[in-house]
Amino acid sequence: MLSKEVTEYLASHRGEHLEQLFELLRFPSVSSQSAHEADCLACAEHIAGHLRGLGFSAELRPWRKHPVLLARSTSGIAEKSAPTVLIYAHYDVQPPDPMGLWVSPPFDPTVRDEAIYARGASDDKGLLMSCINGCEAFIRTAGRLPMNVLFFVEGEEEMGSPDLEDFVTAAADDLKSDFALVMDLGFFAPAAPTILTGLRGLMYLELTLDGPSADLHSGQHGGAVVNPLNALAGMIAAMHDDAGRVTLGGFYDDVVEPGRVELDQWESLPFDESEYAKEVGVEPVGGERGKTVLQRRWSRPTLDCNGIVGGYQGEGAKTVLPASATAKISMRLVPNQRPDKVLWAFDEFVADNTPAGVRASVKVLSRSRPFVIQPDSPAVSAVKDALREAFGADTVLARAGGSVPVAELIQRVLKVDPVVTGFALPDDNIHSPNERFRLEQFHTGAVAAAAMLNNLAGAD
Amino acid sequence: MLSKEVTEYLASHRGEHLEQLFELLRFPSVSSQSAHEADCLACAEHIAGHLRGLGFSAELRPWRKHPVLLARSTSGIAEKSAPTVLIYAHYDVQPPDPMGLWVSPPFDPTVRDEAIYARGASDDKGLLMSCINGCEAFIRTAGRLPMNVLFFVEGEEEMGSPDLEDFVTAAADDLKSDFALVMDLGFFAPAAPTILTGLRGLMYLELTLDGPSADLHSGQHGGAVVNPLNALAGMIAAMHDDAGRVTLGGFYDDVVEPGRVELDQWESLPFDESEYAKEVGVEPVGGERGKTVLQRRWSRPTLDCNGIVGGYQGEGAKTVLPASATAKISMRLVPNQRPDKVLWAFDEFVADNTPAGVRASVKVLSRSRPFVIQPDSPAVSAVKDALREAFGADTVLARAGGSVPVAELIQRVLKVDPVVTGFALPDDNIHSPNERFRLEQFHTGAVAAAAMLNNLAGAD
Repeated sequence: MLSKEVTEYLASHRGEHLEQLFELLRFPSVSSQSAHEADCLACAEHIAGHLRGLGFSAELRPWRKHPVLLARSTSGIAEKSAPTVLIYAHYDVQPPDPMGLWVSPPFDPTVRDEAIYARGASDDKGLLMSCINGCEAFIRTAGRLPMNVLFFVEGEEEMGSPDLEDFVTAAADDLKSDFALVMDLGFFAPAAPTILTGLRGLMYLELTLDGPSADLHSGQHGGAVVNPLNALAGMIAAMHDDAGRVTLGGFYDDVVEPGRVELDQWESLPFDESEYAKEVGVEPVGGERGKTVLQRRWSRPTLDCNGIVGGYQGEGAKTVLPASATAKISMRLVPNQRPDKVLWAFDEFVADNTPAGVRASVKVLSRSRPFVIQPDSPAVSAVKDALREAFGADTVLARAGGSVPVAELIQRVLKVDPVVTGFALPDDNIHSPNERFRLEQFHTGAVAAAAMLNNLAGAD
Repeated sequence: MLSKEVTEYLASHRGEHLEQLFELLRFPSVSSQSAHEADCLACAEHIAGHLRGLGFSAELRPWRKHPVLLARSTSGIAEKSAPTVLIYAHYDVQPPDPMGLWVSPPFDPTVRDEAIYARGASDDKGLLMSCINGCEAFIRTAGRLPMNVLFFVEGEEEMGSPDLEDFVTAAADDLKSDFALVMDLGFFAPAAPTILTGLRGLMYLELTLDGPSADLHSGQHGGAVVNPLNALAGMIAAMHDDAGRVTLGGFYDDVVEPGRVELDQWESLPFDESEYAKEVGVEPVGGERGKTVLQRRWSRPTLDCNGIVGGYQGEGAKTVLPASATAKISMRLVPNQRPDKVLWAFDEFVADNTPAGVRASVKVLSRSRPFVIQPDSPAVSAVKDALREAFGADTVLARAGGSVPVAELIQRVLKVDPVVTGFALPDDNIHSPNERFRLEQFHTGAVAAAAMLNNLAGAD
C-alpha cells in the first residue's frame, strides 16, 4: 500500500500537476508533419528539463526524425541495487485535423465537464504526466523512488514508430530492465482498469497510381485517358470480397485464433453492442461476417483506406482528371501475421490488378508486428493490485485493436514481457477532434502509477 | 477585309494590350471558392470599367454568387440600326491547385518562351481581351464599330454555370442579338483555327457516405464499423463495367452517334494518336472499348471521379476511419442525353448500391446539356473567313469534349445558333498548373475578332 504521505501529496498538488500537463499539451508535437519538427524537439526538451528537475539524468537521442528521450533515476533518488522498471510513453501526437470540428483549439488545452480537452490529452501526454507525477510524489515525500525508473519516451509513435526496432536493438543495453510498463491506451470501459494482453500490428502504406503527366481537363480528355482516381477506386474495391474478407493472397494463412479461454473472457466483458453502436454513431456492421464485434476489433486483421489524395478536395467543382492518385492504406495485423509477408502479398496484388494506362508504386510508411502475452506473470499481478488500490476496481484482461509497436519490440528484443496499460477511457476521442482526458483519470492515474512502482519493487 | 488602320493599330498596341491582360490576370477570380468572392467582383468591375472607357454602357447584374457583366455598345460607337453580335466569355477561373507544380505563381502573370503564363490566360481572360482589343481598334481608328456589340461575360462558368439557364431566360430581351460568338476553348491544333460544332454537357455532383459520428481510430474500431472510404471506393468502382462502360441504368439509351459525314471529317483531322499520347504523357487507353480517341472525347459520355474528400490527405500516416467520405463525380453528356434523366439514374444506382453501415446523399453542383449545330450558316461562313484573314489558315470543324453551358442556352433560349470558337491551343494546360496563352494567339486573336465583326456586319 502507498504511504499516506504519497497519496496526500498527489491530492494536494492537483492544480500544479494540471498546469504542468497544460504546458506539455501546448506543444503541437505532430510527428508526421515536417512543419512541426521543431515543436517535437521543443516538447521533448521540455519533458527532459522537467525530469531533470526531479533528479533524473535525461538525454535526447537523435533518431530518424524526432529524438528519443531516455531519463534514468540517479542514485540521488533511487538505490542502484533496486530493480528497474522501464516506463514507455510517447510525446508525439496525431495531426489535429479536421480542425473545424474542434470546440476549442487542439493545442490550447482547456477544462470542460471535468475533462481536459486537447490533442494528446489522453494519447499520450496525460498518461506520461500521471507516471511522472507518481514518481514526483515519492521523491518529494520519501526523498527516494521505491525502485529504479527508466523513462523511454519516443516521438514517432503516431507515425507508426517506423524504425524503432533499430533503436531498441542498438540501445538494448541502455534499455535493460527487470520490468516494463507500456503506458498507452487505457480502460476497456469506465471503472474497468485494463491490462492489454494483445495488440494488433500495423502495415501502413501508400499506393500511388500515376497516369497523365499533368492534371488534365476532364472535358477535353475524359474518356481518352484512364483516370487514376477511378482506377484507384477499382483497386481498393477489389481488396475486399463480398463477405468483407481481404483478398490479398494468403492474407489469413498465418492468423491464429485466440484460445477458448480468452474468447470466453471476452464474452464476459462489460461490452454491449448497442451501447457501442451509440458510442460510434453507427451500426457496427463492418469487417468479416460471422465474427463478433470484439473479435473483429481485436483478433481479426483489417485493411482500411485512410485517405485518398489526388484531383480536387476543395469546395465546389473542379473538372480535373488528376495526373496521379494516392491511397493511404493501413492493415491491422494479428498473431502470427508478419508484416514482410503481408507486404509481399500486397505488392503481388498490385502487380496483378493495376489496369493499363496507369503505373503503380507502393511506399511503406510504417510496419509493426502484432503482440500477445500470457497474463500470469508477477508483473501483471503487481500492476493489477496497483490498479485496484488506486481505482478501487478489478482489472480486466482484454486486447486492443490498435498498435503500439514498442510492446512487441520490448518483448522480442529486450526479452521482457511488458505490461501494457493506461488510463484513457474509450470515449476520449483519441485520433479524433475534441480529444479529452478525464481529470479523475489523470489524477488517479498518478496514484496508480505510484502504486505500480511500489508493487513492482517487491515483485519477483 | 480589315482596314490597314485597324491592323496597324493592333500591331502597334501589343505592349499596352499585354499589360492590360496582365492586370486582368492578377485577379484570383476563382469562382468555386467563397474566399475569392470579392476577387471575382473586383475582376468583373475592372472589366466593366475598361469597357466603359471604350464607350460601352456596362452593368454588373448580381447573380447567384458572382455577377454577370453585360456591356453594350452605345450610339457613340455604333449605329443603332446595325445588327448586333453577342460575344460571350467568362471572367472566372479554375482553382490553381496543385500550387506546388506552378513554375511561376498562378496570379502573377509572366511571359516565358513567347507565352503568357497565368491561371486564366487562355481560359478565358485572354480570349475576352482579344475581343475587346478588336473592338478598341475600330473605335480608336474609325471612331465606330462595324456593328453593335453586346458583351455577355459571366463569372460562374468554371462552376458549371449552375443557374445560367434562369439568367438567360430572365434576361432574354436584353440578350437579343442577330449573331452570337461563344469565345471559349480554341484551336484543334496549332495553325488549325476551329469552330466547334458540338460540346458535351456536364453533370457534376458530390456523393457523400456518412458512417460513424466522428473520425475514429482505425486500430480501435477497424473491422467493426464500415469505413466510408472503402465503401465509396466500392461504389465508384461499380460505376463502370470491365469494358469501360458506365453502368448507370439506361445511361446510353439516348446517345445519338454522329453521322457518317461528321465521323469522316474527324478522320481527316490532323490528329495523331501517338502525338496525343506524348502530349498527355500516357497511352490513351481509357473509356469505352472499340471507339477512337476522338469519338471517346467528343461523342461518348463519361463518368469521372474528380476528387475524394475524407480521412487524411496530409503528409505521412494518420490511422483514421473517417466519419464520412465524399466523391466529386462528373459526367460528360452527349446528344441527346438529358441531365435530369442521368441524375435519376445516378440516384437509382446509389439507392441500389449503398452498403449497410453508411448513409448516402447526393448533391448536384452543376448540370448542363450537350450542344450541336449544323455548320452551314452565314455566321459560320463569316467567322471562317475572319479566321483565315487573321491566321492565314482554313478553319476545321470539330467538336470538343468540354462543356460551355451557355452555347446550348443561347441556341435553345435565345434561338440563335452561336459560333463557338477561340484562340487557345491544345497544350495550353487549361485547368492544369502552368496554364499559358501564346502571345501570337493573343495578338492575332484580336485581329481575328476585329475581322469577325467586320464580316458579321455584312452577313445575312
